[in-house]
Amino acid sequence: MKSKVVRGAGASWPEIPVRAYKELPEAYRDVTRRVLLGAGEGEEALAFELRYFEVAAGGFSSLERHEHPHAVVILAGRGEVRLGDRRFEIEPFDAVYVAPREPHQFLATRGEALGFLCLVDRLRDRPELLGDP
Amino acid sequence: MKSKVVRGAGASWPEIPVRAYKELPEAYRDVTRRVLLGAGEGEEALAFELRYFEVAAGGFSSLERHEHPHAVVILAGRGEVRLGDRRFEIEPFDAVYVAPREPHQFLATRGEALGFLCLVDRLRDRPELLGDP
Repeated sequence: MKSKVVRGAGASWPEIPVRAYKELPEAYRDVTRRVLLGAGEGEEALAFELRYFEVAAGGFSSLERHEHPHAVVILAGRGEVRLGDRRFEIEPFDAVYVAPREPHQFLATRGEALGFLCLVDRLRDRPELLGDP
Repeated sequence: MKSKVVRGAGASWPEIPVRAYKELPEAYRDVTRRVLLGAGEGEEALAFELRYFEVAAGGFSSLERHEHPHAVVILAGRGEVRLGDRRFEIEPFDAVYVAPREPHQFLATRGEALGFLCLVDRLRDRPELLGDP
């Protein structure tokens, strides 16, 4: 239950493993996932998880929806977010609220990697994957 | 309940009001607070709030403790965090976990403003303020 500092080295955290984004590689392209806080031993007091996703240039996250909302903050690069039928350009310091059941997708469409923090409830429903990007 | 993008302009968000950090000005110095997501109408589905704090050069947050934990990510500037009896230098991309009941304080001791995201449960206990910085 100890407080701690997780060191960043730019948008990378040497102590934090880089994980596959999902187990369904056909649903996305070139996305990695890191859990910065909330999943480790002793962090059970956090009711949410703080994750960092990186979408390589040309990549995209799965188009999906779920009951739990997202709070997102862009930290690196530029790209687009799809929210229902809308698309928005996103860049560092933009914050995105993804409402419950809203279909959404993050895309690195600007020739550079897109990196963002994404906050979710610790206990949450599984995403429903939606068709093709 | 709509999804949305809150535009950043560097570590500033034109749509988001800058608020006083606390109502007890003697407990801190030169700190502002913004609630980026989680406090607005239609955002009740978020069980947490995403806030951004800025500590001007030479300023500090109140030394305090509470039952709810914090998840923090530094976005701008450098400074220090006090976690119990320990002090750590912090800089952008460092993530900080503040465990329940841990006395903590953020200080802009490096001659520059320190800015960070701070995540908390929407429903949380009130901080207990602790002595002098």
